[in-house]
Amino acid sequence: MEISMERPVFKAVGTPVEELDTPALVVDVGSVKHNIAEAHRAFVSGPSLLRPDVHSHLCPAIAAMQLDAPGTVGGVAVSTVGEAEVFSENGASDILVRNLLVTKSKIVRACGVASRCSVTVVVESAANAKLLSQISSESGIELGVLAQVKSPGGQIGAASAADALALARVVLELDGLLFKGLYADGEFPSEDVGSNTTQTLLEARATLDNSGIDVPIVSVSANEELFNSGGAEGITEVIAGAYALMDNRHTAYHSNLRHAAKILATIITHPEPEVAWLDTGQKASSIDTGLPEVDGASGVYLSRMSAEHGGLVVEGDAQNSLNVGDKVWLIPSDIGNCANVYDFIHAAENGALEAVWDVAARGRYS
Amino acid sequence: MEISMERPVFKAVGTPVEELDTPALVVDVGSVKHNIAEAHRAFVSGPSLLRPDVHSHLCPAIAAMQLDAPGTVGGVAVSTVGEAEVFSENGASDILVRNLLVTKSKIVRACGVASRCSVTVVVESAANAKLLSQISSESGIELGVLAQVKSPGGQIGAASAADALALARVVLELDGLLFKGLYADGEFPSEDVGSNTTQTLLEARATLDNSGIDVPIVSVSANEELFNSGGAEGITEVIAGAYALMDNRHTAYHSNLRHAAKILATIITHPEPEVAWLDTGQKASSIDTGLPEVDGASGVYLSRMSAEHGGLVVEGDAQNSLNVGDKVWLIPSDIGNCANVYDFIHAAENGALEAVWDVAARGRYS
Repeated sequence: MEISMERPVFKAVGTPVEELDTPALVVDVGSVKHNIAEAHRAFVSGPSLLRPDVHSHLCPAIAAMQLDAPGTVGGVAVSTVGEAEVFSENGASDILVRNLLVTKSKIVRACGVASRCSVTVVVESAANAKLLSQISSESGIELGVLAQVKSPGGQIGAASAADALALARVVLELDGLLFKGLYADGEFPSEDVGSNTTQTLLEARATLDNSGIDVPIVSVSANEELFNSGGAEGITEVIAGAYALMDNRHTAYHSNLRHAAKILATIITHPEPEVAWLDTGQKASSIDTGLPEVDGASGVYLSRMSAEHGGLVVEGDAQNSLNVGDKVWLIPSDIGNCANVYDFIHAAENGALEAVWDVAARGRYS
Repeated sequence: MEISMERPVFKAVGTPVEELDTPALVVDVGSVKHNIAEAHRAFVSGPSLLRPDVHSHLCPAIAAMQLDAPGTVGGVAVSTVGEAEVFSENGASDILVRNLLVTKSKIVRACGVASRCSVTVVVESAANAKLLSQISSESGIELGVLAQVKSPGGQIGAASAADALALARVVLELDGLLFKGLYADGEFPSEDVGSNTTQTLLEARATLDNSGIDVPIVSVSANEELFNSGGAEGITEVIAGAYALMDNRHTAYHSNLRHAAKILATIITHPEPEVAWLDTGQKASSIDTGLPEVDGASGVYLSRMSAEHGGLVVEGDAQNSLNVGDKVWLIPSDIGNCANVYDFIHAAENGALEAVWDVAARGRYS
């Protein structure tokens, strides 16, 4: 037998997914296409457009599929400057950075990205707007700016339409900044709150309109209602990302979407009839928002995880059918946290490896 | 102002750590040296030697510091074949893989590592020993083997000394395997359990001795008692790793050790006197075992984290002293999970950047 000196982590295209070394994050490409088609359809006919939030997967290959689908604004949302750097290097031409940038170093880096594509940032205070202006104007760069409006359940942003107007006026007077409109965090999954956020944004927009200020963008992160209705009148874009790969947290809100991303795990020991252990633990799944769900194996569920192992409870007939070496599929609780702990995604079609996708923005927290 | 087209994540040596882009995992080298000196001292004079478990940091630079210190077996423990691959490429010559290897693909890869350094694996069943033997002998490779003994609170391994003897005899008869001794998971942090595990191992060892079987290694993962006493008579090696960097989970057991690894975070908004938000959330810390602790800031603590943000509660005088842009230090709950979400560690001496250490084995789950 030949000994490979290479890390044989990358299998040949066509390899059955069950033969991948585990734990492995496997994405079914057909399900991704299904999810994107389903989700984008509402925005093709709805009142708003969709801005894919790529912090949900951190993967340029998936972002490209989202931007190729109809109903988008043609740009992406990210959480960090590091993610903006990665996606700008991978073809994104319009990037909204949702984290507040309050240090000189981060703003300088944002200006670096803005030198090669459109970058829009969110501000919530005049002081922050002035710092952004100082650095962008010294850099000879223009940063797009959305003024954040405080949503009914939120804590951050202009507290009233009058405050939003005052913040917009500050931005409009500053060099190096281009006022682009308003932004609010949507609330999810509460019931009526989404429409309250929408109402809050629309009131702020009306106040700016009445003062003669152009508001080309009114942006809100999705809740169930905005996502399923394709937005709302007066909202220009809805930010959403988990729909492409899906996870267990969002199952109840998106019953028409498929769990396109799963972790393949192997049973490494089955010491008692009702106990088995997987080779997959916290490091390879993230349980920050909860344990993964075992998929398609009746009577088998995770009861706990250590750093490297997953403890299974095995009930009923499963006790006679489960063996050491068998594979188990896990649905991550939160796809953003899960993708973040992988360097690459195994993309599969019809159960066979089709490609290896780089999770290029993994770990770009700063 | 010049715009950098490079990702300016890597700062110049000498940069004050407070100027690093956040979130950043920062390690104080002096504290690492202190911790290693403190922990290894017990094993220089104690009955056992120490085997550093590098899954706690996944970082070859730290492993080298541990192996350079006195009191070790001269080798490391890892959890996965992927980690063994990385550490063998970074100078480790003796590697114990603690995960059970039950698939052909993993065992072939373990043999690949064993073609360039000493690899020892753990077995708990005759069937697994036979699969290992089949692949290693076909590869012309010899794998070291430790027979796992079931610790009093554990579920995996030979259930009695007689079972351990039977398993050892299976291994001794198989080609491609070198029987090296016994292994058990220690139990931590219960009180008497450690000594029970030790007793269980010593009974198994005596049974093998009486049958004329040489037992060069008796290995156990550390609990508080074994760690602080430098092991126990008849135990040849104790496996421990968190001591080098430390974390919040281990504070109570190792009061002489310092929190060498902390996450530097920035306050990005402070919307109400008692509320502030950090730019650091689950992705950049891992809260699988709990929220980080705020270090050195009285009246400030984390109450929650989202994927990218940390919610601070601010009390008392801190309400008047904390501002947007201020830095906050966080002590991770679990250093293994935390290191795993970073590509590199900022190594600091006296508050200034000294080196950037690669977390080379991060994400090597398979």
